[in-house]
This record gives sequence, C-alpha cells and structure tokens, in this order.
Amino acid sequence: MNLSVNDLSSNLELLKKHNPLVHNITNVVVTNVTANALLAIGASPIMAYAKEEMEDIISISDALVLNIGTLTKDIIDVMLLAGKYADKKKIPVIFDPVGAGASGLRNDASKEIVSNIKLAIIRGNESEIANLYGVKLETKGVDSKGHVEDKIGLAKELALKVSSTVCISGKEDIISDGSNVFSVKNGDAALTKMTGAGCISSSVMGAFVAIDKNYAKASLTGAVLIGICGELAALKSKLSGSFQVEFFNNLSSFNSDILHKYAKFEEVCR
Amino acid sequence: MNLSVNDLSSNLELLKKHNPLVHNITNVVVTNVTANALLAIGASPIMAYAKEEMEDIISISDALVLNIGTLTKDIIDVMLLAGKYADKKKIPVIFDPVGAGASGLRNDASKEIVSNIKLAIIRGNESEIANLYGVKLETKGVDSKGHVEDKIGLAKELALKVSSTVCISGKEDIISDGSNVFSVKNGDAALTKMTGAGCISSSVMGAFVAIDKNYAKASLTGAVLIGICGELAALKSKLSGSFQVEFFNNLSSFNSDILHKYAKFEEVCR
Amino acid sequence: MNLSVNDLSSNLELLKKHNPLVHNITNVVVTNVTANALLAIGASPIMAYAKEEMEDIISISDALVLNIGTLTKDIIDVMLLAGKYADKKKIPVIFDPVGAGASGLRNDASKEIVSNIKLAIIRGNESEIANLYGVKLETKGVDSKGHVEDKIGLAKELALKVSSTVCISGKEDIISDGSNVFSVKNGDAALTKMTGAGCISSSVMGAFVAIDKNYAKASLTGAVLIGICGELAALKSKLSGSFQVEFFNNLSSFNSDILHKYAKFEEVCR
Repeated sequence: MNLSVNDLSSNLELLKKHNPLVHNITNVVVTNVTANALLAIGASPIMAYAKEEMEDIISISDALVLNIGTLTKDIIDVMLLAGKYADKKKIPVIFDPVGAGASGLRNDASKEIVSNIKLAIIRGNESEIANLYGVKLETKGVDSKGHVEDKIGLAKELALKVSSTVCISGKEDIISDGSNVFSVKNGDAALTKMTGAGCISSSVMGAFVAIDKNYAKASLTGAVLIGICGELAALKSKLSGSFQVEFFNNLSSFNSDILHKYAKFEEVCR
Repeated sequence: MNLSVNDLSSNLELLKKHNPLVHNITNVVVTNVTANALLAIGASPIMAYAKEEMEDIISISDALVLNIGTLTKDIIDVMLLAGKYADKKKIPVIFDPVGAGASGLRNDASKEIVSNIKLAIIRGNESEIANLYGVKLETKGVDSKGHVEDKIGLAKELALKVSSTVCISGKEDIISDGSNVFSVKNGDAALTKMTGAGCISSSVMGAFVAIDKNYAKASLTGAVLIGICGELAALKSKLSGSFQVEFFNNLSSFNSDILHKYAKFEEVCR
Repeated sequence: MNLSVNDLSSNLELLKKHNPLVHNITNVVVTNVTANALLAIGASPIMAYAKEEMEDIISISDALVLNIGTLTKDIIDVMLLAGKYADKKKIPVIFDPVGAGASGLRNDASKEIVSNIKLAIIRGNESEIANLYGVKLETKGVDSKGHVEDKIGLAKELALKVSSTVCISGKEDIISDGSNVFSVKNGDAALTKMTGAGCISSSVMGAFVAIDKNYAKASLTGAVLIGICGELAALKSKLSGSFQVEFFNNLSSFNSDILHKYAKFEEVCR
C-alpha cells in the first residue's frame, strides 16, 4: 500500500470536517488529558461507564476506545457490552491493552476482548503486544521492559492472528495490518515521561478510524501526529510541566504544513 | 432585580472571607481541575462518593454539586442520598446534567434528581437544559448541538417549573430564577475546547451559592467570573495547553478590579 | 540519627538507578498528577484497583501507597488485601489518611489500615494525624483546620504507638520514627492551593522507601524534595496554572546541587 504524507494530510481535513464523537472507556489516570487531546485535534470526547447507557452512547458515537489501565471486573463487562453494540452498529473499536503481562486479570481481559470484539486497531507498547501475542515479556508495570527480537514480525503476526491493525509504540512505532508494515520514526523520549502518552495515542487513533476505513492509514496518521507533537514539544522543553503544556499546544495547532515538514514514516518491505 | 457589578464584587469578598467547603459528586474526567479551580478562587473542595460517609461529609459542607458526567447506578443513589442530607441541612445544591439527552440513563437520573432534590441552580448547555425541560434536542455526546428558538423562554420556563435558578451556558449565558432574566456576554470559544469548563463553572457557582442566598446573583457571579477568565486566558493563548494554564492563572488572580473592567452582563426585560 | 544533605542526595541517586515501581491505590482527584510526579522524579507509577489482580501487581511492585481521599467500601477491602500481599512480599507501605476526621468511614478505614497493615510511613496534615492518634481536631474537609499544641510530641507518640515513621506536613513538616525527630522548613503556601500536593508527597515518599530501608530518611528526602520544588516554583509564579507547571518542571530537574543549595531540615533534640 503506497501511502504519502498527502494521505495523512487528508485525514486531518476529514477529522476537522466531521468532528467525530469518540467514546472512551478508559482508565482513571488519563481521562482528563484524553478528553483534552481529542478536543485539541478537533474531535469530541465522551466517557461513559454505565452498562445501562452503553447502547445509547454507542448509538451516537463514531468510534469506541477500550483501555484497561485501571480495569475492574465490572469494567470488563461494560467493555464487552460496549464492544457488542459497536459491532452491531459497525463503528470501529480501538483496544489499548495497558499493562498486559502485569497481571492475570489483564491478560484474561485482553484475551476476552480480542476474542469477542472485532477490533480495528490494537495499540500498545512492546511488552503489552508481545504478551497479547503469547510471548511472555517482562513488564515494568504499565511500561515496557522486555524486548522482542523481531518487532515487525510480531506486529504482522498478531495482526494476522486477530484480523486487526496492530501498532507497537516505542522509539520506533511499527504498524501492520497483516500484509503491509509501516515504521514511524517521529517521537521523543520525553513522551515516555508524560503519563498517558500511549493512552492519548490510542484515543487519537480512535478519532482517525472514525473517519478513515483504512485502519493502517488511520493508525499511521495518529502515530505520526503524536510523534511530531512530542518532538516539537521537546524542542521547547523536556521539563515535565512545560513539556505537557507544549504537547497540548502542538496538538491544537497541528496542521498539514507541520505534517509535511516533520513526518518521518516509511513502508517496510517484507 | 437590579444587579450591579458591585453586587458581584461583594460576592468575591464574601467568598474569600468565608472560604466555603464545596462538596462535589462529579465525573472522573474533571475531578482534578474542579478541585484546583475551587482552590484558585478561594474555596475549598471535597470529593466523596461513599454512601456511608455522605451524611458526615454533608454536615461539614457549605454547598453540594451534583454532576452526572460519568454516572453509574450506584452514583445516582449516592447523589439522591447526598441531596436528601443537603435538604435536611439546608445547604444549597447545584445540578449539572452533563449529557442529558445523550442516554436514557442520564435523562432518567436527571428527572429523578430534579424531582427529589431542592436545587438552587441547574447549569448546563443548551441541549442539556432543553432535554431536561422535555424538548428533545440532539446532543453531540456531552456537547451541545441542537438549538432552541427561545433560550430566554426556556431558562425562565424551566426555572418556574422546577423552582430553581437555571443557567444555560453558551456563547451568551442566560440565567433566570423564573421572574428575572440575565444575559452574560463574557467568555471565549476556547472554553469549549477545554474539557470541564462547564463542570468547573457549576462547581464555582457552588462556591457562590454557599455565601449568597440570592441564587440568580450567585449564578451570575460564577458565570461572569468564568467568562472573564476564559476571555483573558484566550488573549494570552488559544493553544490547548497554554490556554488551560492561563485560565487557572486568571482564576487565582481574579479580583474586583478585573470584574469591574471586564464584566458584560445585563438584565433582560421580558 | 545524624543525617546530612549527602544522605538525602544518595537517595536521589539510588532512585534514579533503581527506578522503583510504585503501586498507588489512590483517590480519583490526583491519579494523573501522582503518576506524572513519580515519572518526573525517576520512578515508575502503577495504579490498580481490582482485587483480582492485587497479588500480581504487588509481586512486581517495590512500594505500595494507600490514599483514602475518595474511598468506598470496596476500595477499603482492596487496600486491606493489597496491604496483606505487601506484608507478605515485604515491600514498604505508605498510608495517606486523607480527610481522617471528616467522616466516620474515613476514621474507621484509617483504624483498620493502621491495625492490619505494617506501615513504613504515615503522612498527613495536622488534623489528619491528630485524628488518627485519637485527638479530635476539626477538619476543613480534606484540609487541616485545627491545631495541636505539640506537633513534635504528636508525631513521636503516633510513631511509637503504631511502629511507623510519621510525617506531619504543614508550614513546617515534622517527621519522627518514634525515637528521632526531624523538622523540614522547605515549602511554600502555594502548595496548599494546588490540589494533591500532599498526595503527591506521599507517593514520592513511596518511591524513596522503595530504595531506602531507613524510613525516616526516606520520608525526609521526600519532604525536602517536595518542599524545595514548591519553593522554587513559587519563585517563578504563585498563579494556579503556572505554579503547577513550574512545580512539575522542578520535580523533573531536581538534583543533588539543588538539594545542597536549598535543603532546610534539622534534627530536633527531644
């Protein structure tokens, strides 16, 4: 699949034109920053957790993001229910398996979600994706610790296995829909020091799958956007408070010119 | 009712003098920013969600804010219980019907709260207030989408129907206690791009009703304060991160001089 | 116990070297800022609330922080369970009795936690610690209101009674392990206007007890670090938004030189 910066740029325009409503069932650490990130890029956020309103909320939503960062048994049930309604309404679902590998509960919930819900994109760090695939990698809680030899193979294999686009975030992001593979070299280490950067990335991809049925392209657009905003923020400051402010400033001023100037991605031939 | 800027200015002084404790049963997206906003203007926040401590917490609180942004069945029960104790202790209650119209659960919970709790102020956006009144307006999740012909009539009618002061937030805020109507022209579109601006506004009104039994005046003070802080922040920056920082800076440096210089409200004769 | 700035400085190095994983069962108001604070100083945060994964999460954690700021009956059970696993694995536990004195539920939960879990450090404000000791002091919700005559005596007595290090935060912090007492004069009033400053302080102490078995020294390191970061932030700005940004900037740039230049603590001879 040949993808140029112009393809990603079109997604920016579509996003601003359609202002999709992204429903997030996410963790309590990142709710505020996730909502602000979606607003900053031109989408609309909603967070809803009650099973009694799940059908109603899904019926007005354009995408669903499931993030297990602070899951409980009840939340898993709500996620499965939301996924069922999303399948029925045919809206795309993003899955962020935060901390997969760190507990049996997270592993089991991840498997249940992957088995029962049609997922457009799965986005996680290296150890989360490896654990999801069945390779036991050590985690540092919700941060990645272990390494796999072949990230490209892992992304491609998992994508084929579960029929989703898979994005492994890291110093280099790897995105695969099972047949095509892309690598993204945008980003900065400062992003790993801001809590929720990965979670935000998943929700931003939720905004792009809402307007782009090519999930690999949607995922790529999100990964490049987050990466560039991290880079530009880090140029201003790598200090914790200022970096956060600059990151959000860049989200809200992101545009086609910036995309063309800074995008660093390529198709990986394999 | 003749209200001058001086009347609002007196409320600022009373707030700083009495430092009221505002109890918030609010959504998980805005807890942190709500607490910081209350601290910034000179009030004290508390958030408590356990039914077992509701009576104790209400007994030390000066106002109660109910916000259904991320409600569950349990939270609805806790809100009804908190409202009962607030009625008993005669402390004012603010209701923010976040996302009313977006789900049956939110509609039902809103009706139950309005029917069972004596409310000092109901604050919401146009579609939330319309849905509460029984006019079915389309929502964009938790954001307003539809429009009513006559916002002034809506505010006045709902205020009469439920015996509360009603504040419809928007480009122009409309506040009515059923007999008087005020319009506020302070504010900036950047506020709609910061998650929780409305929720913060409700909690800030909670701080003012704690020290002012004239609920229309208390609501007006809150609406003007939030509007001006949004305006002044937007003068510095409309970028997502910087706007938030500036908004909170303005909350914490707000004073009588700024109020006199920037307040834009008037009584609407009807 | 003779403690010099060099002892605290060694803790900074150990923290950065070992990058401990700190598990927080904390309140919904402060989750985001707590995670960012831990990342900023060089630790790793995890937040997990499901009883089903508590054993797994504790097994990979280096310290546990229990904070009852927005507790429910379920959360109390989860905390007791987490504490049991922490005892078993011998990882240190920090307890932050937010709002102790404000409700029977918080008092009862605090007593249950103190009775059933071996605590490395208890950190709270004056009224929380007094209430924990059994002296009924008035609270302003989650903020301290009453005063005790003898803070040093209180810290020492409670430390002896419960066999923990006790830190009473305030204008002057008092830390005692029952035999030694330290006072810290770093800090700024602006910290009391930022929600979660105390909660952050508890979690930061969680990072230090993970790498220092001398709990009084670990607590002292945390208190001095938070105090200095508050002071330096306040030098830049006391406005709500900017102060927060500067506080986090200082957390992430804190180092041995800053510690040596600004630390103000002393052993209190009693």
